[in-house]
Amino acid sequence: MNTYLDCIPCFLRQALEAARAATDDQDIHRRVLNSVAEMIPQLPLDVTPPEIAQRIYRLTYQIIGNNDPYREAKHLANQKMLALYPELKQAVANSADPLLTACKLAIAGNSIDLATGSSSDDIDSIVRSAPTMPLATSDYPEFRRSIERSSHVLYLGDNAGEIVFDRILIEELHRERCLEISFVVRERPIINDVTRLDAIFVGLDRVASIVSSGSDAPATILSQCSPQILRLYHWADTIIAKGQGNYESLSGEQSNIFFFLKAKCPVVARLLGVNIGDAILKGIAGHRD
Amino acid sequence: MNTYLDCIPCFLRQALEAARAATDDQDIHRRVLNSVAEMIPQLPLDVTPPEIAQRIYRLTYQIIGNNDPYREAKHLANQKMLALYPELKQAVANSADPLLTACKLAIAGNSIDLATGSSSDDIDSIVRSAPTMPLATSDYPEFRRSIERSSHVLYLGDNAGEIVFDRILIEELHRERCLEISFVVRERPIINDVTRLDAIFVGLDRVASIVSSGSDAPATILSQCSPQILRLYHWADTIIAKGQGNYESLSGEQSNIFFFLKAKCPVVARLLGVNIGDAILKGIAGHRD
Repeated sequence: MNTYLDCIPCFLRQALEAARAATDDQDIHRRVLNSVAEMIPQLPLDVTPPEIAQRIYRLTYQIIGNNDPYREAKHLANQKMLALYPELKQAVANSADPLLTACKLAIAGNSIDLATGSSSDDIDSIVRSAPTMPLATSDYPEFRRSIERSSHVLYLGDNAGEIVFDRILIEELHRERCLEISFVVRERPIINDVTRLDAIFVGLDRVASIVSSGSDAPATILSQCSPQILRLYHWADTIIAKGQGNYESLSGEQSNIFFFLKAKCPVVARLLGVNIGDAILKGIAGHRD
Repeated sequence: MNTYLDCIPCFLRQALEAARAATDDQDIHRRVLNSVAEMIPQLPLDVTPPEIAQRIYRLTYQIIGNNDPYREAKHLANQKMLALYPELKQAVANSADPLLTACKLAIAGNSIDLATGSSSDDIDSIVRSAPTMPLATSDYPEFRRSIERSSHVLYLGDNAGEIVFDRILIEELHRERCLEISFVVRERPIINDVTRLDAIFVGLDRVASIVSSGSDAPATILSQCSPQILRLYHWADTIIAKGQGNYESLSGEQSNIFFFLKAKCPVVARLLGVNIGDAILKGIAGHRD
């Protein structure tokens, strides 16, 4: 999808939040706001929102002199969600359809998103109630059919913390006999997005091959991806794309992608025909099956 | 209160909304966003948010070539709320404490605020449930005591639509023997704020003297008010200030003011120690009694 004008005030807010995560110095906060404001008249709208976000975060990180202001928040989210792992594994195992429950958990985990102002404070109750959470858009039957025929799954990760639930879903995919699963992380830290270190911290490397996107974009921007990712992308039988960023960057593609996300802003909610906060499992047209 | 950095992305969003209310021309929307963005580095933070909002709306209205983009929305809100008047008058009359119920109704009516993205669509249920609505901050006992001793009340209005409930409260004030009530409207249209025409449309002129603030600020900025307003302001036994804008512009004053509002943004909610959406009836320090 292209960037909407609505995204621009939101980017400005995100830059301020990132500056505040790095420092209490209000002069620096103001400098970040002013510098991002000065970029606005030049911002193109015919690119996806994560491509604009990437430029804005790069500028912000340069001004604040910190290329990972959410490091501590990410680490806390990973730790906190990891503590829930045994309980939620049990909930999945005890459920009537473990794959569906694991999908819902992976979507509920997408509530952890510092770009949209969510935090891991209220996440415990969100993920605990995930097994009974309704899906506003559910292509689960198509997803299950696709998985049953898939040897290779490409799993495009999103945020730290959330990755604990991605691990639970990946473990279910193995039970469904998916042989090879590649989990894509960002090349460098951006917002609270998953990097290789986060993936290893929660043990994702034990259940999937961890591969870097080759880019610091908070999404999967194919033109910026490494040749390895592009090979995996075209080779995969099923692609799972987590979060709004991946939806924004890949919703125009024709691959066998299933988007797992919470709708977090008015623009994406409107495009999906759902309410903010709704849980989405959505395949896109062009499924190979 | 001074302007917070958080307010700046919000102003940008408001400018875009105002442009969209006036025209579907996306080039104009973009021009508004760019022009407001260019103002940002020069914006002072040591003035109140409504003073910044005033500058931003003036610029926006100049670019869109329309000085009242919310005219239709305001008219609809006035009509819609007026249709509820008989039912809500009855609810007030039948309640155990009609003055308290009328206060709650006037606060619930403050939910109609196009600057913060609220609309009159869901307002029916909000005002209908107002009699049982809890107040997160309640200085109602002090307010009642103040009103019992007041001959002259200055009532600082806020939004179109909402003014129907201000009228109901003013009618209750008359029953409490307040002799003179002056209702302040904006001098010129800004956002969906009440002007003289709105006040007359809902019959406020039959229960109060309508006086203009002398300014197009979306709040009561004393340095911009007419000498008449300043006289009334210093003469009034009790001042009722409706809405966030009036809270933002007058919370630092030492007059006998009671703020009636819904907390609509994170900054004001934090300052008041409440949640977004909470209903507030708050007196400020320095009451004369």
